[in-house]
Order: sequence, then C-alpha cells, then structure tokens
Amino acid sequence: MAEPLKLGLAGLGTVGSATVRMLMRSKDELAARAGRPIELKAYASKDPPRDNTIDLSNIRKVDGPVALAADPEIDVFVELMGGAGDPAKSSVEAAFNAGHGVVTANKALIAKHGVQLAKLAEQKNAPFSFEAAVAGGIPVIKTLREGLGGAHISRVYGILNGTCNYILTQMLKEKRSFADCLKEAQKLGYAEADPTFDIGGFDTAHKIAILTSIAFGTEVDADAIYIEGIESITLADLEAADDLGYRVKLLGVATRNESGIEQRVHPTMVPKGSVIGEIDGVLNGVAIDSDMMGLTLVGPGAGGDATSSAVVADIVDLAAGRRVHPFGRPAAKLKKLARAPMQRHEGGYYIRLAAIDKPGTAATIARRMADENISLESIMQHRKASRPHGGDDPKSAGAAASVVLITYATSEDAVRRALAVIEKEGVLAEKPQVIRIEKS
Amino acid sequence: MAEPLKLGLAGLGTVGSATVRMLMRSKDELAARAGRPIELKAYASKDPPRDNTIDLSNIRKVDGPVALAADPEIDVFVELMGGAGDPAKSSVEAAFNAGHGVVTANKALIAKHGVQLAKLAEQKNAPFSFEAAVAGGIPVIKTLREGLGGAHISRVYGILNGTCNYILTQMLKEKRSFADCLKEAQKLGYAEADPTFDIGGFDTAHKIAILTSIAFGTEVDADAIYIEGIESITLADLEAADDLGYRVKLLGVATRNESGIEQRVHPTMVPKGSVIGEIDGVLNGVAIDSDMMGLTLVGPGAGGDATSSAVVADIVDLAAGRRVHPFGRPAAKLKKLARAPMQRHEGGYYIRLAAIDKPGTAATIARRMADENISLESIMQHRKASRPHGGDDPKSAGAAASVVLITYATSEDAVRRALAVIEKEGVLAEKPQVIRIEKS
Repeated sequence: MAEPLKLGLAGLGTVGSATVRMLMRSKDELAARAGRPIELKAYASKDPPRDNTIDLSNIRKVDGPVALAADPEIDVFVELMGGAGDPAKSSVEAAFNAGHGVVTANKALIAKHGVQLAKLAEQKNAPFSFEAAVAGGIPVIKTLREGLGGAHISRVYGILNGTCNYILTQMLKEKRSFADCLKEAQKLGYAEADPTFDIGGFDTAHKIAILTSIAFGTEVDADAIYIEGIESITLADLEAADDLGYRVKLLGVATRNESGIEQRVHPTMVPKGSVIGEIDGVLNGVAIDSDMMGLTLVGPGAGGDATSSAVVADIVDLAAGRRVHPFGRPAAKLKKLARAPMQRHEGGYYIRLAAIDKPGTAATIARRMADENISLESIMQHRKASRPHGGDDPKSAGAAASVVLITYATSEDAVRRALAVIEKEGVLAEKPQVIRIEKS
Repeated sequence: MAEPLKLGLAGLGTVGSATVRMLMRSKDELAARAGRPIELKAYASKDPPRDNTIDLSNIRKVDGPVALAADPEIDVFVELMGGAGDPAKSSVEAAFNAGHGVVTANKALIAKHGVQLAKLAEQKNAPFSFEAAVAGGIPVIKTLREGLGGAHISRVYGILNGTCNYILTQMLKEKRSFADCLKEAQKLGYAEADPTFDIGGFDTAHKIAILTSIAFGTEVDADAIYIEGIESITLADLEAADDLGYRVKLLGVATRNESGIEQRVHPTMVPKGSVIGEIDGVLNGVAIDSDMMGLTLVGPGAGGDATSSAVVADIVDLAAGRRVHPFGRPAAKLKKLARAPMQRHEGGYYIRLAAIDKPGTAATIARRMADENISLESIMQHRKASRPHGGDDPKSAGAAASVVLITYATSEDAVRRALAVIEKEGVLAEKPQVIRIEKS
C-alpha cells in the first residue's frame, strides 16, 4: 500500500472533535477507500477538545495553527477553527505556501477569500476542498462540481440554515410566536445567544455565495446578495401561506437570467408537497435546476457528525489523488459576477396588509396594484382575529383588517412602487409584509 | 492544455443520442472542467441515431461494438447499448483487454457481471464507471462512493423505477385502477408494451443490487433479492394508506442487520410528509441512512437528458484523471453477501383482508394475530363499498367486508403463519393483501 497521507488538524470544537473521532474509528475502511492509510500526525488547538473521549496522547501538539499548517511532517492541513480572518486565513495561506493541501469547513473564509485562496492553491499545485462549508453533510459541492456532466445550471436554491428552518417549522406546528420559538431554539442549542447571523440571513448568504460561484463559474461575491432575515415573519403569515397551499422557508436563491446572476436570501413561499416545502426542523435541502433536470438533496446541514463526514470525504478524495478545481474550474477563469439588480426580480408575491377597515380600502389597494400592471391571483380580506367579534358593524370602520394578496408574476420594482403609493394613501395601519413566491 | 480524451461510443438510442448531443454542445465547458478536451472519435450503432439532429458526419463509424471497444484510437469506450449479455458484455471486456476505460449506463450488465468486470478493469488498471446505471440523473453512486466520508451505512432505500411510481401516483390522484393507469403509462411512453420488467420489480431489483454492493462492500447479488411487484395493489389499498397517513411506493431496500444484508423490492407504505413519501410521478428518490446522518436525493431516474448527464459526469471524471474503484473499494475485497432471510424481516405491516361478513370474524382475525404475538396498532372494519347500502341488516351476513390491520413491528414469519391459519379458518373471501411498512 502507498505512503500514508499525513494530516495536521487545527480546531477541536464540535466538528474538529468529530473529525478526529471518525478518522480513528474508520481507519481501516478509509484506508481501503483511499488506497492508502490516513494518519493524523499533529494538531493545534487553543482549547481542550470539545469531545473529551478522543485520545490525542499519541498525536503531536503544535503551538498555533500557522506553525502546524507549514509543519514539514504533514501533507494536508485540516482547518476547523472557523472565522473569515486570522488565524484561519493566515494558516491556510501558510499551508499552500508550504505546498500542503487544505481541507476546511469554514464558510465565512470561503465566502470572503475563497477565490483568492483557490488561486494561491492552484499556483502551488496544492489541493483545496471545502465540502463541509455548505449544508454540512449534504454533498452539494461535489454534486455541483462533479455530478452534473454538461448540464447548464439555471438555478440553485435551498434551505441552508437549520436554525431558521427549525423556528419557522415550530411556529406553524405549535402556533407560537417567532420570539418564543427563537428562545426555544436557543435553549436547545440550535441558535446562538446572538442569533443575528442565522436569523438575519447572513449565514445563508455565505453559503449561497459559494454555491453561486460553483454553479455559474463566477467569482464568489457575497456583497452582491440581497438579504432579508426571518425576524418579521409572523404566525399569521405562516397560517395564511398554509391556507394558500404554501410553506414559508428562508431560502438562499441564485438564478441566472438575462440581466445577470440574481443572488438573494429571504423568507420565501414554496408549494406544500414540493421537496423543499416539506423539509421540516433543522434539516437542510438544496435544489439544483439545469436544462437537463432538477435535482434535490436533503440532509443535515450542521452538527459534528454530519459536518465531519463531509470533511472526511474531502480528505479521502485527496488521499486517493482525486483532484478537482476548488470552484469546479481554474480560479483564474472564474468570471466577475454580473449582478442582476433586485428591483428587476420577477416572480409572484404574497403581500399582507393591515388595512384600515373602511369601505373602499380593498378597492383602493386593488386599483393601485392595477396601476402598476400587477395582476392578482387572489385577494382575501378578513378582520383581525384580535378584534372583538361583531359582524359587519359599520361603526367599527377605522379598525384594522388583514388583506392578503397573491400576485401573478410581476417585478419587485412594480410591487415596491404600488406599496409606496398605497402607504401614502393612509389606508394602512402597519408596514406591509411582502414574501416572495418561488416556483418549485 | 493536455491531450484530449478520445471516446468511442456504442449505441445511439435515447441515451446515446443525448450523450452525443451533450458532448458536442458543452464541449468548451467540459474541457474547462476536465482540464483537457473530450473528443468523440468513433461510434458503433446498428440503427441510425434516435435523435436525427445530431451530426455524426465527422465521426468515424466502426463496424460493431467489439471492434470499437478495442479500437486503438480511443481511450474510453462508452457503452450505451444495454442488455446483460453480448454484445454489451463482450465489448466491455474487449475495451478492458485493450487497456481502455469504460463508462456505461447498463444496469442489467452491472447487476449481473459488474464485479467480474470490475476485477478485470482493476487488473488492467482501466477506469470503469456506471453512475447512469442507477437512478438516471441522480448521482447516488458518486455520493455512496465519495460523498459520505467514514460513515457506516445502515440502510439504502428508494424509489428506483419511475414507471411504477407514476402508476401508483396516478391511481390515487385520479381514483383509477391499476390496469387503467398502466395503459396510460404505456401510451405516454413511461411503460413498455411488456411492462413486466418494471411493474414486477425486476428493474428496481437490478438497481438496489448495485447500491447494496457499494453501500455495504459486498459482491453484487441480485439473486438474493426478495421481489414483489405492484400488480396486486388496488386503489382501495392506496386510499386506506392515505387514511392512515401513508403513501404506497415500490421501494428497493437494502439494510444491514444481525443476520446479514436484507435486500428486498416490494410495495411499501412510507409516511406522508417524508421526503420519499412525497415523491410523485416519474421522479426517483434514494435515501441513505448511516450512523452519522440521513441523506435523501431526489431527481429524474430516466430519460435521455438526465441519464446522459450522469454518463457525461463519469466521462469528465475520467478525463480529469479522478479514479475510484467501481464499487468503492477493490473488487477483490468485496465480501460475499450474507443474505438475511426474508422470513426474519422485522417491521410493521398493513394487512387488508376481504373477510366474510359474519359475527365474530374480526374477533377471529384478532385472536389469530395475538396467537403469533402480533400486536395491532389499529384494526378497521368496513363493508365493501360495492355492496348495496343497507345498514347493519343481519341477513346480509356472509357478504365480504374489508378489514384493515396495521401491526406494530413483528416478523415476516409470524405474519405469514397467522395469515395461513386465518385462511384455513375459511373466513376470507379473497387472498390477503400484505404491504410492509418502512420507517422513514
């Protein structure tokens, strides 16, 4: 059997610990798959391992990840510390400069510096893989890079953040508020103490930025993403969606259209019964549409076991000598991303308005929509449930009624203009809620 | 750029034509992905191309696939003729003996001779890939071989035949009979004139046999598969399943348990709302369970575009020099499959009995189940809808009533014994219908 592949691993948190455990537990099977043994030779970690059952007594500890990355005994540096800045970035650079390969799970690093690092890796002829950076255990990067033959991808979209999907699932299932379900997610360890990164859509944005690059052959451009989080979603929205045959999911979406590449992250209505629409709880799912077919992958997007299985799969590919350009083609050949402006986004819209309940309000709203050539698939008006019941008493005029509109395909611009006019008419008691509809 | 990879392609049916089209259309992109041009140099086909828009005027025609496979000008033989016997088998052997690589979409060939061919390929150090042989465009073989790191797979199962899934979907959706929906599928080209291979479960068996081998590191053993088709499924079964929260799907299932590897193909009840349960129409879906996570892939299982995209993905991997053992590990190291006997299968069961409608029948049935230690989760009895309505008239005793049982987990053996006794009691008007329940 060939020479072993020697690893240096930095970071012993949840994913790092799980990776060490899997490398040790599956030693023989991994060697059989790779055609050579895979040996953890050295590690660096500022904290003791998260999982204290792993035995590192025979593994050399190196002082700091940068020194580990350049250590002459290793072939591949496994970066599991996280964070877009140093020491993750400097240690990955040090690894490439020493001619070592790199495997990482670091989505922030790849979203921010991935192309630059890929160029360095290719210059040094060093392998560079980051399957675990997107959607945890789902092999979506491998599928995009190697699984689709000559298909032209038109859209990649999916549920890429388990925290948000858990909260949205629980809200509808248990008829509870966003705040309540967020608190529960925090208690269960699904959400951080400061949940902004997840619920604000920023984590999803990092991931869709990486997928966009691989799918469309463009440079990663996380700054070109339109981002809305799930903070404004109410139980009323989820229930209205349910009535209309939809689920609300936080999606990352990348599509190619005439004006360029559209990248967006926002709460989205997807049909009930569609694969993405039926993904509940902390699971992730990614759909890939091409001119040849549609493909959907569903699995765990986080957690030590799932994420480390993606890390180890990358390591086995390197050990077996299977090489692929990090972004599917030479980094120097990635094109600048031509951003399709969000104002020109086209699709259906769900719009919920808290309208002042007086005669003519619905007509006013419908007219303003028509002024912008927005065709309505449906319009539903009902009094707010929180109002005392009392029939159609005209004296109650002036209270709020909920008006829910579903539009046929129109443009973002038209919707914004129509809503601005309606807001100016003074018929709304609250800011309008807008949720885009995604065709499955 | 490196030397081109030169292909010889045999078979110009739906998949062969689509493959030629994709190779021509995506020439530049494939070259960028592979790091070298991919050139179709020669072809063999006894018929003109199925798709007459492809231009083969500059491609050399070779007389017969065996000659093509050994042709000194080619590097890789692409076998798209189908069939387990010759000329597919002999031409693939000729390719290996000439030191050429092989890419094929031929499930029958792989199910029957795959391991033997893999041994020959490894002996000759020739690459050998067959992603398109299972589930068309879904990259399930790549995922099993390369995407799961060190995870220990415990079960692989899925919808692997679009014809059956189409028929079962249409029956429930349109409240039509099996025979009707089969005829429709034939008219739409989803089912063959002789549909036995699909609806009898044999096509699914070929595919699950291949997945079993890769998932569990065992030799392909299609003869060890327990097979039931969907011919006996009635609309009443689908409706009863719907009432009980299930969908009925023809699944191929491979699991590892204490007594060995269980491989089975049969109509199966899976929960509504599960990813597999919600896959409708001709789509396929495969779920992979491991100690680390569950993963589900959904996409088109057939058709020229989807299947050729898998063929081309294999070709690009070969062109890029990415090598993998055909069954994930050296063919010589695959173990003999230890067959877990079907009698010892454990799980829940749906049992529908056409019982003679007389006092005590339900009690008799329940008692015989209890005799075999089968616990019932539910028992539902109702008169046959086809009987004239007429209330509980005791004079109607002797007519048939439908009794539907759902059992808790029990063994196949116990169910068969209980049903044999019940049949002997003379309380049944028809043969019992048994559908196994699969946990998602």
